[in-house]
Amino acid sequence: MFNPAVSKLTAPPVSVVQDWRAAYDGGCGNLIDMSQAVPGYAAHPDMTAALENAAADQNSARYGRVEGDWDLRLAYAAHLGIVYGHDIVPEETHITSGCNQAFVAAALAVAGHGDEILMTRPCYFNHESALGMLGIGIGYVDCHADNGMLPRLEDVEAAISTTTRAVAIVSPNNPCGAIYPPDLLDGIFELCRAKGIWLILDETYRDFLPLDATSPHDLFRHEAWQQTLVQLYSFSKSYCMPGHRLGAVTAGASFVLELAKIIDNIQICAPRVAQMAVTPMLTALTEWRQANRERIAGRATLFEEVIRSLDGWDLLSTGAYFGYVRHPQAGSEASLEIAKRLAREVGVLTIPGTFFGDGQDAFLRFAFANAGRDVIAELPDRLAGF
Amino acid sequence: MFNPAVSKLTAPPVSVVQDWRAAYDGGCGNLIDMSQAVPGYAAHPDMTAALENAAADQNSARYGRVEGDWDLRLAYAAHLGIVYGHDIVPEETHITSGCNQAFVAAALAVAGHGDEILMTRPCYFNHESALGMLGIGIGYVDCHADNGMLPRLEDVEAAISTTTRAVAIVSPNNPCGAIYPPDLLDGIFELCRAKGIWLILDETYRDFLPLDATSPHDLFRHEAWQQTLVQLYSFSKSYCMPGHRLGAVTAGASFVLELAKIIDNIQICAPRVAQMAVTPMLTALTEWRQANRERIAGRATLFEEVIRSLDGWDLLSTGAYFGYVRHPQAGSEASLEIAKRLAREVGVLTIPGTFFGDGQDAFLRFAFANAGRDVIAELPDRLAGF
Repeated sequence: MFNPAVSKLTAPPVSVVQDWRAAYDGGCGNLIDMSQAVPGYAAHPDMTAALENAAADQNSARYGRVEGDWDLRLAYAAHLGIVYGHDIVPEETHITSGCNQAFVAAALAVAGHGDEILMTRPCYFNHESALGMLGIGIGYVDCHADNGMLPRLEDVEAAISTTTRAVAIVSPNNPCGAIYPPDLLDGIFELCRAKGIWLILDETYRDFLPLDATSPHDLFRHEAWQQTLVQLYSFSKSYCMPGHRLGAVTAGASFVLELAKIIDNIQICAPRVAQMAVTPMLTALTEWRQANRERIAGRATLFEEVIRSLDGWDLLSTGAYFGYVRHPQAGSEASLEIAKRLAREVGVLTIPGTFFGDGQDAFLRFAFANAGRDVIAELPDRLAGF
Repeated sequence: MFNPAVSKLTAPPVSVVQDWRAAYDGGCGNLIDMSQAVPGYAAHPDMTAALENAAADQNSARYGRVEGDWDLRLAYAAHLGIVYGHDIVPEETHITSGCNQAFVAAALAVAGHGDEILMTRPCYFNHESALGMLGIGIGYVDCHADNGMLPRLEDVEAAISTTTRAVAIVSPNNPCGAIYPPDLLDGIFELCRAKGIWLILDETYRDFLPLDATSPHDLFRHEAWQQTLVQLYSFSKSYCMPGHRLGAVTAGASFVLELAKIIDNIQICAPRVAQMAVTPMLTALTEWRQANRERIAGRATLFEEVIRSLDGWDLLSTGAYFGYVRHPQAGSEASLEIAKRLAREVGVLTIPGTFFGDGQDAFLRFAFANAGRDVIAELPDRLAGF
């Protein structure tokens, strides 16, 4: 009765994990939710006021253009020019209702049945299930701890087959937190260009790079980058607005025309309130974004110290929102079981490795950005017993 | 470089038509936009206030459950009980980001590559392009004027093949406006049940039934309707909030589990502001919805009078938001050309029949709900020259 491509998928991982809340009796103090990646602080008051004003404006109740409000595309293109140091025109942007939708649309624009998209493993679970439900084949490039949970260029090259239509990369990575150095991204870009396939680069966590990074990468300097690169972004983390559902694609103007056909079918347009509210904030909240980058970097440092201080726990990689951690029962207890026990016994919610692909059962993903320093400091007491 | 299933689709029809605005010089007065289906009046002030309050609430900035806010699902299930006269439980609802998304998710839940979904023709263009981009095959049942632009049951039966996974119906119909009588829907339901396939019933325009209709249909009375029926709805038209993107699916609880996997990938959750705001309005705006139903019915009557008064124009069917009209140049001028001319020469925007499928070139869709009675009354002067 159901499409087997969908029925064979697991239930949404975040929902599964959130349902474990009820099993915790509060014995160790408040529940610490390091499962779903959400900013652990409130939106800027100006952002909330802008959302309120936009909702009060009758214009926000009307349909907008499929590709996004022109004002936002104009502002976002200018913002991209600042972030990357290269000119992007508004016609090279497409606003979406969140970055998951951006990925689905980008994948579908380049691949259908019988085609394949290459992912790194551990995978962001929604990328894997999105390709699965669309009937697009998936190729995997495994990332290893001895390479900082980054893929090796030769492994990417070896994995590209005649059916490969794109390589999908997430940097800063979800679930690993690993930051792709600009030269690795350049190498993958050149590889994709040489093979005539697309590079889909999800930069949801772009605004949370390490403090010494000056720019996420330099891919937009390439002449005719539009023939190879499709770049994805989410406003959810940077502006503390995941519930408003807003994301963006940066790609060649001809790619944007393909995206518009897809987004028209699945969304018509992104929610207008969020589009109208965020437009002036790209500039207005520059300093606030930088302050949050510093705040999250501080949490990353503290999280690293905490995990390194614990016997039996091993931090494979960290950065932006995430730490990818080998749990003490690796080899003897499945990640799903230990994550359930962590939730039930000590009130710590994490995402078990099993949701990030085959071979990930030794690991857990901690989204430490969700929690303040005082909460992260509670982790040793909670985790010590494991 | 692109997925041929997407690249072969036309650009979004509403965008194409909206771009004709610039060609009109205003010589006949204000442009009359009867293209995209949008309510031609403002939202209720209480609705706008509720949206404003929800946007000011920090909680709306947070992710919600994939299936939708429980409060809204509870309220919507109760509302369905009133509309249809049968009990629906909240677990049988799934909130989506608009009804196009509801259709994409419902289609993908039941059909993949090599499967087929049966549609009536003329088709709602986004349904056709959604199936096209997903690589799902499309079967067609043609509707004819001598049957009120409704499909014949025997034609539906004859079109069902071994690869057919669902029959997709829109009532009140887009683009025809035709209202499916309850006994026809019952016949199609029984046919689907007998064949073991799904009936996907899009009721976006449910709140704009003719004034003598007491209920849209009685399909929910069937025991185990959950094994056959998937019902879709949009909040956009009834609450004047298309820019907020909110829709819903009513289906069996096991179907909802499949939907959640898909919606998680393409949306994570529907925008929270819209969900929070609309929840109390389902009850609060009952009388207002009824008043709008009467208002739109009045426009339908006037539109019918107007078209019938014009030589060479022929109204095939009408109801809810739409009239489906044979234009005077049928057979000699393509619908795309005459629609362009109508826009440019007399400032009337309509959707040409070509966007509703093969064999529709003699027709135009007028979304008369967009326009007040005074504006509809201007149509004879504008159209007389054609």
